Amino acid sequence: MSADSPWLRDCWYVIAWNHEIPPADAPQLFSRTALGEPILVLRTADGGLAAIEDRCCHRLAPLSKGRREGDCVRCGYHGLKFDAQGACVEAPGIAIVPARARVRSYPVALHNNWVFVWMGEPARADRALLPDNFSCDHPDWRHQPGYMHYDTPYLLICDNLLDFSHLSYVHEKTLGGSPRIAQAVPQIERLAHGIKVSRHVPDVAPPPFYQRFRRFDTHLDRWFVYEFLLPGTLLMHSGGRPVADAKDDLSRAVQLHSCQSLTPETETSTHYFFQQSHRAGQGDEGMTQSIYDSLLTAFNEDRDMITAQHRNILLNPQAPMLPLAMDAALVQFRRLLAARVQAERAAAAA
Amino acid sequence: MSADSPWLRDCWYVIAWNHEIPPADAPQLFSRTALGEPILVLRTADGGLAAIEDRCCHRLAPLSKGRREGDCVRCGYHGLKFDAQGACVEAPGIAIVPARARVRSYPVALHNNWVFVWMGEPARADRALLPDNFSCDHPDWRHQPGYMHYDTPYLLICDNLLDFSHLSYVHEKTLGGSPRIAQAVPQIERLAHGIKVSRHVPDVAPPPFYQRFRRFDTHLDRWFVYEFLLPGTLLMHSGGRPVADAKDDLSRAVQLHSCQSLTPETETSTHYFFQQSHRAGQGDEGMTQSIYDSLLTAFNEDRDMITAQHRNILLNPQAPMLPLAMDAALVQFRRLLAARVQAERAAAAA
Amino acid sequence: MSADSPWLRDCWYVIAWNHEIPPADAPQLFSRTALGEPILVLRTADGGLAAIEDRCCHRLAPLSKGRREGDCVRCGYHGLKFDAQGACVEAPGIAIVPARARVRSYPVALHNNWVFVWMGEPARADRALLPDNFSCDHPDWRHQPGYMHYDTPYLLICDNLLDFSHLSYVHEKTLGGSPRIAQAVPQIERLAHGIKVSRHVPDVAPPPFYQRFRRFDTHLDRWFVYEFLLPGTLLMHSGGRPVADAKDDLSRAVQLHSCQSLTPETETSTHYFFQQSHRAGQGDEGMTQSIYDSLLTAFNEDRDMITAQHRNILLNPQAPMLPLAMDAALVQFRRLLAARVQAERAAAAA
Repeated sequence: MSADSPWLRDCWYVIAWNHEIPPADAPQLFSRTALGEPILVLRTADGGLAAIEDRCCHRLAPLSKGRREGDCVRCGYHGLKFDAQGACVEAPGIAIVPARARVRSYPVALHNNWVFVWMGEPARADRALLPDNFSCDHPDWRHQPGYMHYDTPYLLICDNLLDFSHLSYVHEKTLGGSPRIAQAVPQIERLAHGIKVSRHVPDVAPPPFYQRFRRFDTHLDRWFVYEFLLPGTLLMHSGGRPVADAKDDLSRAVQLHSCQSLTPETETSTHYFFQQSHRAGQGDEGMTQSIYDSLLTAFNEDRDMITAQHRNILLNPQAPMLPLAMDAALVQFRRLLAARVQAERAAAAA
Repeated sequence: MSADSPWLRDCWYVIAWNHEIPPADAPQLFSRTALGEPILVLRTADGGLAAIEDRCCHRLAPLSKGRREGDCVRCGYHGLKFDAQGACVEAPGIAIVPARARVRSYPVALHNNWVFVWMGEPARADRALLPDNFSCDHPDWRHQPGYMHYDTPYLLICDNLLDFSHLSYVHEKTLGGSPRIAQAVPQIERLAHGIKVSRHVPDVAPPPFYQRFRRFDTHLDRWFVYEFLLPGTLLMHSGGRPVADAKDDLSRAVQLHSCQSLTPETETSTHYFFQQSHRAGQGDEGMTQSIYDSLLTAFNEDRDMITAQHRNILLNPQAPMLPLAMDAALVQFRRLLAARVQAERAAAAA
Repeated sequence: MSADSPWLRDCWYVIAWNHEIPPADAPQLFSRTALGEPILVLRTADGGLAAIEDRCCHRLAPLSKGRREGDCVRCGYHGLKFDAQGACVEAPGIAIVPARARVRSYPVALHNNWVFVWMGEPARADRALLPDNFSCDHPDWRHQPGYMHYDTPYLLICDNLLDFSHLSYVHEKTLGGSPRIAQAVPQIERLAHGIKVSRHVPDVAPPPFYQRFRRFDTHLDRWFVYEFLLPGTLLMHSGGRPVADAKDDLSRAVQLHSCQSLTPETETSTHYFFQQSHRAGQGDEGMTQSIYDSLLTAFNEDRDMITAQHRNILLNPQAPMLPLAMDAALVQFRRLLAARVQAERAAAAA
């Protein structure tokens, strides 16, 4: 691990939805860059997953431009063959392959349909640190999986997700709908590996996409309760209940669970994995698709705004931001992240 | 003002034609970058103009992606509201907005249909320094306004305008037409804020676009007399008279007045505002359009050449230029500009 | 010559195929950038060739955007006129052109349809150093000339050409066809100005494009014998003979000669000139075209791979390569080149 990495390394990053990785008997090879490192993810014959550096140790060609041979991959440039652990097991014309001929192997974990890679020291990989993205794979919940690419640094998107006051403005006509979301003061709690944000917004009009659940003709009490965990995963319960209903009466409430995760591709680009789930059995047939469409529309609004913000930052990288009360969660998250990165660098330098 | 700005700051830069700024009751917001700074120009309800930094002080999003509320603009990201002087007058969920929550405001001046911003110290903004671009708004003169964008540094375009010998070559088939334009030695005078160039070219064929004024069947005596003023504005009287006519007989002469101004967008891109006016009542109905078309054709020739020149410079930024006699005006202008920038930097550093 | 040039200077680089240079009486001007320098190549009225810097000494505009006047070129910006040796012979409005008004002139050589320029000290230009690209212009050989542009550094392409083990993988379905090409150990010899590589591959299936020569129904013994000369020229005899035939019986053999040359355009882009010739009289009418098509298909495979390799290198420029036995020729060539460049720098600094 480099002493000057700009990112946290000892943690799990989502690299793909499970369905993106081709089956073991398909010829396609899946590759995606995370933290500036090209990574090939392979489904093995035993049904497991393997992740190795997508850069041949010989001349640095991407292995993903080669071909599968069983659970191995052969480089398409000069024919070196690597097993799923990254060891070179064959090199044309070379009787004994040197032991140092290998590419990096990454611990990989499949957890509720998200494929994670551990970008730090393999020995420290710990499945207990995987986030509880249960609704990505749960019989009581329904969703359509989403992926989006950003040409901005990942921290600007973390910022966005840590301050939902933007729902009143960026998503005025989609997910949000009322300035009262921005006016509501959220409760912020520090967690061991992130921040918890709880925002309750009483007595507001339902957002347009709620009407698909049922025809609401009264205001709702809405809530957004989420954890935002290192390195960049949001796990959120949200919903709305007619104001007349008792607090514990969810019979007419909309209940949603959303899992979203950000993985830096490079210093200026980001992968965004997301879904928002509704309870199975709620709404009509098109409900799942409808929620996905609303989310995608809204996330395009975010991306437009953040991309414009990034252009402004590029025009003058020294221009300071002005922290305001609404930034409490994101400031805490940035501090937590910086402290962890700093600790990793210190450990790596020692 | 930064001590290392590459540009002159204490001066007026054209940021727009007046007609480009939407009316006070329109929802659109106008933004343009000058000297690397994004600037939002707003027409206020009282008919005035305001110019503020197009970058929210909070998270640096462009205010122009937000919305008008009266003479204020609300940021479309988190809802901060700014008045036309750049003060934040409302922030969602914050009872008392901190005084330092504000964006930069620029002195703005509307003068003969050009909208100018003062990029330096506001207290030094001086309307007496506005150029005399009278023909941009004068009952005796007609023109069609032009705008063009360059992907080159603005000084290369100043160079172009300060040496009309290029008319014989770049514009051989359009504005120019004869090597005698290049051969004529212009008179160069130093002004308080620029350079004056007077070039008389006796006994040459009329350029093609003159034929629209009247059918010339003899050679002309042509003249180009212009001031080129800091930071980059050309104000020119030009024309041509049949060689047989007396010097003071303009009855059959073509008389033109042109106003052109260059504003750096970034270090490698430039805004170009231009028009060439003819006397009202001269020529047929299509005259104004015809002059504009000729000018645009010629300015595309300039842009092609200067863009190619810039590519060559990028290939080897150290390659020296060789000053020749024809560069007298541009060398003087570059010296004047460098001295002024140097003086500003010294004052800013003091 | 610069003391920190990344390239070898005292050598011939191919700048064009002869047919690319317009005739002396055509208005077009030919320009191409080599080693970061824009170069205009002119066919003169006496049938010779001249090469001068394509960058006017005055304001650095490309002369190729100007026009021919006999054997001279007039700059299209301000009208300076240069002769074929690079001297400025006329400048508008200037009675006596200063002697330092000139652009660089390059020694140029036409040799077997390749146009070469000498990029180093002109006094050291030596036609004896021109490569023996005889088949580019020989009555006994036929080819169709090829040109391709790469957006990668030229050394990555040299690497490719110095290790034919890639034929088994990159060109598995085109020029190559068998892993035995990679498995065959080539003989490597050091030459005065390059490397000689001889690879014999016994008893392999014929590659698809050989079938155009004749219908082969047995395996072949194939050979690839080539010199790879500074700065980046491959001269190769290759072919294949039915395994049953005696070594000196070429009656049923395929015999090819290929000339290929790489010229750096910039540090990250390259010109590639190539042809593969067959004996005149062999094959049907479409043979020449068919060989060219096969070559082009294969060279696009190379470019795809090398471009992907280059992207990986850009992601992490510090990632080391791992030299293996198959890299013997390219390692020797890189060492030879580095030593020559180093010697030139030392001489230039002295």
